[in-house]
Amino acid sequence: MASKRLVVDVHTHLYLPRYASLLRQRTALPKIITRTGIDGQNEERLVILKDEPSGGRPIGRSYVERDEKLKFMKKHGIDISIVSTANPWLDFLHPKEAHELALQLNDDLEEYCATGPSVSGTSMRQLYGFGLLPIVPKISIESLLEAVRQIFASPHLRGIIMGTRGIGKGLDDQMLDPVWSAISEAGLTVFLHPHYGIPKEAWGEKNNGHVLPLALGFPMETTIATTRLILSGVFDRFPSLRLFLAHSGGALPQLSSRLASCIDHDPVVASRLKHDARFYLGKLYLDAVCYGPEELGFVSDVLARASRYDTGSKDVVSGGRSMGSERLLFGTDHPFFPPLSTSEKWKSVVENLDAIDNVQGWTEADKDGVKGGNAISLFNL
Amino acid sequence: MASKRLVVDVHTHLYLPRYASLLRQRTALPKIITRTGIDGQNEERLVILKDEPSGGRPIGRSYVERDEKLKFMKKHGIDISIVSTANPWLDFLHPKEAHELALQLNDDLEEYCATGPSVSGTSMRQLYGFGLLPIVPKISIESLLEAVRQIFASPHLRGIIMGTRGIGKGLDDQMLDPVWSAISEAGLTVFLHPHYGIPKEAWGEKNNGHVLPLALGFPMETTIATTRLILSGVFDRFPSLRLFLAHSGGALPQLSSRLASCIDHDPVVASRLKHDARFYLGKLYLDAVCYGPEELGFVSDVLARASRYDTGSKDVVSGGRSMGSERLLFGTDHPFFPPLSTSEKWKSVVENLDAIDNVQGWTEADKDGVKGGNAISLFNL
Repeated sequence: MASKRLVVDVHTHLYLPRYASLLRQRTALPKIITRTGIDGQNEERLVILKDEPSGGRPIGRSYVERDEKLKFMKKHGIDISIVSTANPWLDFLHPKEAHELALQLNDDLEEYCATGPSVSGTSMRQLYGFGLLPIVPKISIESLLEAVRQIFASPHLRGIIMGTRGIGKGLDDQMLDPVWSAISEAGLTVFLHPHYGIPKEAWGEKNNGHVLPLALGFPMETTIATTRLILSGVFDRFPSLRLFLAHSGGALPQLSSRLASCIDHDPVVASRLKHDARFYLGKLYLDAVCYGPEELGFVSDVLARASRYDTGSKDVVSGGRSMGSERLLFGTDHPFFPPLSTSEKWKSVVENLDAIDNVQGWTEADKDGVKGGNAISLFNL
Repeated sequence: MASKRLVVDVHTHLYLPRYASLLRQRTALPKIITRTGIDGQNEERLVILKDEPSGGRPIGRSYVERDEKLKFMKKHGIDISIVSTANPWLDFLHPKEAHELALQLNDDLEEYCATGPSVSGTSMRQLYGFGLLPIVPKISIESLLEAVRQIFASPHLRGIIMGTRGIGKGLDDQMLDPVWSAISEAGLTVFLHPHYGIPKEAWGEKNNGHVLPLALGFPMETTIATTRLILSGVFDRFPSLRLFLAHSGGALPQLSSRLASCIDHDPVVASRLKHDARFYLGKLYLDAVCYGPEELGFVSDVLARASRYDTGSKDVVSGGRSMGSERLLFGTDHPFFPPLSTSEKWKSVVENLDAIDNVQGWTEADKDGVKGGNAISLFNL
């Protein structure tokens, strides 16, 4: 069972060359600018949002070049990466442009993966991908379905990365039901990833760099989008939908019993859903990108306890922490969070691997599953 | 040690009669309105924010009358309550009004507690309180310090309830340093409580009642305010400051390792603080109002692990889950979250007590501590 020991990175980003070129040509945000860095050399910076702290993020070859991704993987002992375009995806484009570019980028990504190396001694490749939908305001649902079909037909694309805005009204928009239906039937996994955070008034006037929007805003955005999905009944209507959340589900696990209580106490929603809110958390997949063993053990508990809240079953015994581990998958968030000083391995990666190794109550098999085996099963590698 | 078995509710609100009268007289928000309820009877509703869902919250005698508080306590086996004015406190008043009303309400609350019943067989009273500061824009720091001195001199007031806006720029405003200093020296505990949530655009267009702002917005507000306090260095400058967070710290425990990682990777803040972000969580006190045993066990772990991140110490061994329990304190959030149907006991209260009883790894002594003993120590009852 050699495959059990493989390390699979499910949260790892890129900008395909076609996409990076587009960002370089743009005059409006988002765009890639070139400026003189502190070492006197030219450096590219990606500016995504208005008033971005620190003049945007440094963006180097590791964002675009496949060889850099493979080098990073080798250095950190990662056998397989399931790569995805980083935010802001296609959110800023008109529907026609978004439609065309989505199809082109999905083809580009399929080729990026298909022409990459294999995992030696196996039939697996080292690179797989999440495709893109042109999910922007005023897009036709048929256009979204066309991209779902394209991704399904692309042998190395195993899911779809998606932001939280939908076609302008969020993911709890009933207009999207045909999309959830098609994705479910195709057996594709939706990787829900934040981009906008929450309105920046929340962060105050002090200069804290990117810390507040990244550390808090990102996971809060994911938490809100997922909660709205739960409240909209999407998981009751599409029980086989596979939703995979970035950053270990953000704050949703810690707020889930409060959520259940607030639903129970509000006449507007108390009778709407088939199950207690905590049941739906057990249907989620979460990456293991939370940087601490206590956090990871906790989300494992929350996934495992979900069966206690299945309204349709009697005498359900909650699974232990091991059971929850089956829905957790290692990730790095590469090429974001590069080390501030040169180092052999990236601290952000080492911390996420250490977190897995140090979860109390997980067996070695559980840890191997989180590092790779669960991804191999979920994405049918 | 009879006192060890007492149940103390540290998160329980009221509107003092003077405050309720003011809200009834107001024409602008926040205000209490009277309308005809579904049973044809007049009912009062508190409307705090613009576009409040469901026309505001029902507000009955339990918000104002001391006998109702004592009846609630008796029904649920609560021996002592440390009551606090519910949001929106004095946020909507001009400085002069806020100053005068704060001092009056602190006197009212002292009398409310002092003239209440005792806990039989002890020297303790059944009611203690958190006072108010007139912490509004343009208030003088001296006015805030005067209220701190008044609260310190009031025998039954043992802390201060506070929102997150400070004097207009949040709690990370360096102008507040003399206030933190005075509070620390007085040994008073600050009960940090949310009110504004996050901007409502986040919630989308669907009618989900109060669920999203209450279940997510409230804890997110607390999380952001506390993180901003940590980043501002308040805990480095005032290491003995006692900060007590509503709703078990919101999402901060689950996001704390991510926060530490984001700080580590951002040149703007990487060298600012004396310790890893997770160290400061160990200085917090949290209520046990999170409705689930897994959540409660997890926050206990996060409090216990904080000593691992003490930069100044060598070979620090992280405490176990029991150690974290010492900084957790039972609360009910009464009179919010009343049951939708008549019932003997309030589900919201029963769930929080059950959560304590079902935390894995806590001893009976730990559970008794969370239910009451920790509050008796912290507030020196």
